[in-house]
Amino acid sequence: MEARPTSASDQVPAPAVPPTRPRRTGYRRLPVQQRREQLISVALELFASRPPEEVSLDDVAEAAEASRPLVYRYFAGGKQQLYEAALRTAADELTSRFVVPLTGTPSEQLAAVLDGYFAFVAEHDAGYSALLRGGSVVETARTSAIVDDVRRAALRRTLRHLGVREAGPRLTLLVRSWIAVVEGASLTWLDEGRTLPVAELRDWLVDQFTAMAAATALHDPQTAEVLAGLLALEGPQAPRAARLREVLDDRR
Amino acid sequence: MEARPTSASDQVPAPAVPPTRPRRTGYRRLPVQQRREQLISVALELFASRPPEEVSLDDVAEAAEASRPLVYRYFAGGKQQLYEAALRTAADELTSRFVVPLTGTPSEQLAAVLDGYFAFVAEHDAGYSALLRGGSVVETARTSAIVDDVRRAALRRTLRHLGVREAGPRLTLLVRSWIAVVEGASLTWLDEGRTLPVAELRDWLVDQFTAMAAATALHDPQTAEVLAGLLALEGPQAPRAARLREVLDDRR
Repeated sequence: MEARPTSASDQVPAPAVPPTRPRRTGYRRLPVQQRREQLISVALELFASRPPEEVSLDDVAEAAEASRPLVYRYFAGGKQQLYEAALRTAADELTSRFVVPLTGTPSEQLAAVLDGYFAFVAEHDAGYSALLRGGSVVETARTSAIVDDVRRAALRRTLRHLGVREAGPRLTLLVRSWIAVVEGASLTWLDEGRTLPVAELRDWLVDQFTAMAAATALHDPQTAEVLAGLLALEGPQAPRAARLREVLDDRR
Repeated sequence: MEARPTSASDQVPAPAVPPTRPRRTGYRRLPVQQRREQLISVALELFASRPPEEVSLDDVAEAAEASRPLVYRYFAGGKQQLYEAALRTAADELTSRFVVPLTGTPSEQLAAVLDGYFAFVAEHDAGYSALLRGGSVVETARTSAIVDDVRRAALRRTLRHLGVREAGPRLTLLVRSWIAVVEGASLTWLDEGRTLPVAELRDWLVDQFTAMAAATALHDPQTAEVLAGLLALEGPQAPRAARLREVLDDRR
């Protein structure tokens, strides 16, 4: 690795306070923050193309055109700390994509959120895969907690979108289960070299939501009510639900 | 911890070969094998009641009424090796429960397999939960591989049971997704102190299978064919499918 001179702003020691908190030495704030963001962004790119095991701090320093000591100044905990910071950044970005558009039928809205999700998965590829598969050397209780935060945010946003204030255990289980199906489908998609068309996978997941809600409605009045509300919004005789009814008819 | 005298058979060094392979010193084989099994069984009980972080090798030795050196003689790799051996034993046991009974409708057969699964989950409680949640200190690429083996076995058995020789990507995705839903549901069940009645959860999972298969059938002729075959076997007008059709009807 080539040693590179550090810039003036990089001479500043890593902030002991979170970088969002205003710093007294105001004029140096932006460069420090920018350098931190650059290192995280470079790390995210490397983690996207290789499993975390195969990314070293030297790789990050080299790709960032920085020295190894500089990277350590920002991330004294080394690769593990950088990985966790990168993961936190990626988690925040993913959570921000859970915002549901205000136009279209419920199915169209769900499809739009899923498109955002798959774009994120495509972008983070190897890192996403290693993280969700477990057993990675950088996986700790802390990284698992970050992933759980994202799942909880997805659950909360979905329930809010369904107009549910207090979800009972069955409706909660339904939404959690569907989120697990989305995760699994995205991993399968990556595994198979993205050969399944993403638009088809997205439509399959929208249909899964309807079907899984129907199965839950058999056991839970709250879910039955939510499903009836969604179907009413789907437009003339909810065309996908009508097709689901057809394939469930053994007298065909 | 009280140090206890080791028995004659325990003086035998830990076998360097897998215990199933016949050993030349035949007369000592059973005691050694029995001791090994006892240690694993004791470890499984401890891992069932506490997360692996909170189980020490001393705990295992004490519960097994053995000395710590004796436990090390059998598991030179310490707690990690013992954990992996226990996990392998549990995984084999779980896989053996995937055998589908030969009587009843497809729904009844699936319900019977799920009963076996939930019995296993109840028995292994904390260990099962820690393992599937990720981020445990004992989790490694090896333990993840053991869990993946179980998932693959579940996939294989389910497809075989469905009479499928060569599953296309969509049918495979359906079965994998349903297995993920089963796992998630079992974790939720443990989290909520087993308050959801297990029979209801099992019936919910059977209904999920039918519903998820219906949603996949909209995208895949192979799944449509498998589903039609299952519905035909369900008996007069597949009563659960009929109820699913009803809740999917927005004109009610």
